[in-house]
Amino acid sequence: MNLAERLSQLGTETAFAVSIEAARHAAAGNRVYPFHLGDLNLPTPENIQQAAVKAMQDGKTGYCPNAGVTELREALAEEINASHGTSYTADNVAIQPGGKPVIGKFIMALMNPGDAVLYPNPGFPIYESMIEFHGGTAVPYGFVEGKDSFELDMEQVERGIAAGARLMIYNDLQNPTAAESSPQELERIAALVREHNLYVLVDEAYLDIRFGGRSASLVSLPGMAERCVILYTFSKKFAMTGWRLGAAIGPSDVIAPMIRMNVNDESCSNHFVQYAAIEALRGDQSEVRRMIDTLHQRRDKAVDILNSIDGVFCYRPNATFYLYPNVTEAMTRKGMAEYEALRIGALQETGVSFCTRLHFGRELPGEQNKYVRLAYSGIDLADIEEGLTKLRDYLQVK
Amino acid sequence: MNLAERLSQLGTETAFAVSIEAARHAAAGNRVYPFHLGDLNLPTPENIQQAAVKAMQDGKTGYCPNAGVTELREALAEEINASHGTSYTADNVAIQPGGKPVIGKFIMALMNPGDAVLYPNPGFPIYESMIEFHGGTAVPYGFVEGKDSFELDMEQVERGIAAGARLMIYNDLQNPTAAESSPQELERIAALVREHNLYVLVDEAYLDIRFGGRSASLVSLPGMAERCVILYTFSKKFAMTGWRLGAAIGPSDVIAPMIRMNVNDESCSNHFVQYAAIEALRGDQSEVRRMIDTLHQRRDKAVDILNSIDGVFCYRPNATFYLYPNVTEAMTRKGMAEYEALRIGALQETGVSFCTRLHFGRELPGEQNKYVRLAYSGIDLADIEEGLTKLRDYLQVK
Repeated sequence: MNLAERLSQLGTETAFAVSIEAARHAAAGNRVYPFHLGDLNLPTPENIQQAAVKAMQDGKTGYCPNAGVTELREALAEEINASHGTSYTADNVAIQPGGKPVIGKFIMALMNPGDAVLYPNPGFPIYESMIEFHGGTAVPYGFVEGKDSFELDMEQVERGIAAGARLMIYNDLQNPTAAESSPQELERIAALVREHNLYVLVDEAYLDIRFGGRSASLVSLPGMAERCVILYTFSKKFAMTGWRLGAAIGPSDVIAPMIRMNVNDESCSNHFVQYAAIEALRGDQSEVRRMIDTLHQRRDKAVDILNSIDGVFCYRPNATFYLYPNVTEAMTRKGMAEYEALRIGALQETGVSFCTRLHFGRELPGEQNKYVRLAYSGIDLADIEEGLTKLRDYLQVK
Repeated sequence: MNLAERLSQLGTETAFAVSIEAARHAAAGNRVYPFHLGDLNLPTPENIQQAAVKAMQDGKTGYCPNAGVTELREALAEEINASHGTSYTADNVAIQPGGKPVIGKFIMALMNPGDAVLYPNPGFPIYESMIEFHGGTAVPYGFVEGKDSFELDMEQVERGIAAGARLMIYNDLQNPTAAESSPQELERIAALVREHNLYVLVDEAYLDIRFGGRSASLVSLPGMAERCVILYTFSKKFAMTGWRLGAAIGPSDVIAPMIRMNVNDESCSNHFVQYAAIEALRGDQSEVRRMIDTLHQRRDKAVDILNSIDGVFCYRPNATFYLYPNVTEAMTRKGMAEYEALRIGALQETGVSFCTRLHFGRELPGEQNKYVRLAYSGIDLADIEEGLTKLRDYLQVK
């Protein structure tokens, strides 16, 4: 049997392999501190669960429209209009079985084979995979260390545009760096988008996971709503990762072919789950606020301990549930040149399981610093303290 | 904004347009008899619903493995082994958000651009759409009228193979014809598959919707398990169309890249819904049996009335919930040359809404007979009688 040639271009999420190793380590009787996956160990709020049960019992078990339930599309348009200052209607919303499907559908709707597409690296590995799987050229841009957070390497962005890229994937409140664009950075990106007539996938999966200030969106700036498709997901904010519900939100002339892809790919998303999503948007938010408070406490605990480790530096990001500490000096002190030595050593010696920079793309030319990514979405406060204290002891011994 | 060129090859299900027209006709105050869509107006069995609720409350709301919950994969392998005589394990099963995603993933895993792929026409329109969207050449084969049911036009199949097709899509217990391969026909197909080393997508969405006899599967014949991927869905048998759950079942060297596509496309299918599916397979089957009895009664009522209409002939198929009557003479008597005249006339004059042959692909060269498709999955017995009696009156008046 001959597999199709395109499969050689299909990537994966290597973080799943880390999960498997961690599970194996735990199964062998070891204590594991899970910082590797961006899943939540918090339950979906009760009112959202109840809305799903009610819709199921009310018979929302047959097909629904390919684009999604109209009331949910309207609720999402309202939600985004309120936060982004846009004027979307239901026609601008295509419900999807998760946020992730928006990546492939955006690429299939706008990219021809051979087209260059800018994407963040380090970044969610599916961007690069889907660009290459569908025959495009993935053009990476990285991040530099700024005063209070990572900043986009705008030179790399500009170089990619000069080389011909007209599509861009942009993930504000970023995985893995937790970087958040400043108002100035947003303006610079918007200016480039307008000047070169770019089209942008704006991945806002973590927009509402924040502990201070207010999230801004590229889509709010002049000319952007016409040139951006928002990746929206219910997964993170509402602790609904396993429910698989999200949406593409953008100009109707791009949303329409994405709805046609829904017809061909999965018909529609789960019908009764969409009523749970309406409750998530319009119902009581107190459990969501408690969840944010919990994550806020975890962030502070983790950042405090990480910054107490010699040779480790970590920002205190206002958003996402990721930390991306610089571990260059700590690795040097341990005599470690390779990421895997650190990751496997830490797992085996301390039980602390995390991803490294390599799980988020190939290293870029000239990259000097070493980083690892810790997610604190799936680990309780006491375990954060215990685990990271062990990690500190491990890293401080040569 | 420039949309990607591949979108010009992306088809759709034109049956959805029929739904919209029917809804509009009803909204204008008219009685509509819905024979157009293959959805069920029967609730998902209570034990299946309860299993979903329990799993949700037990916290199955986070991510699950990309390939699906292991227990469900094992349950599906067992189920198919029992009915098909195969020896699948969990490794042969990739859970999907519906049966439909298997079509695109099969094509992306095995077809290179330019490859010829045999597909049934009339048939589920997504086959042709996905072949062409991903750059293949869609090679149709049709059906001929046999003694008790439609039969595959094996000459067209052989001609397609002679022209180079090495991939085939085969839908036994077929939508729209309700055709079921005889043992002899299965043997002929299997011989061609072995002789020419074909690879086959075996769409068995309706395998368990039957009212007599026993369903056979191509996959049970020698050499077939190595060369076939089964499209399995929970949608029809368990009245779970809106739940969106299905699976690809086949050789692990094809299933593995399909799982990798899951990683890239949608991460995983809804977690708690997979526990409902385990209950569907292993739990009490009494509601499922009642559903089959209900469909059985509907079939007989519909076939009896259709065959009482002058100029209409309809088989009495043992499986699926579709009827594909030959209406050639009735159309001639009404002086109708075009399908749309019949469909729109019937809707407006009688409220009976159905699809025609044209909703299942382009007419093949030399096609003489005219057919329409009636689904009786979404309409009760009394309405079948009332609607089809009105249709009879309409068709028998010139």
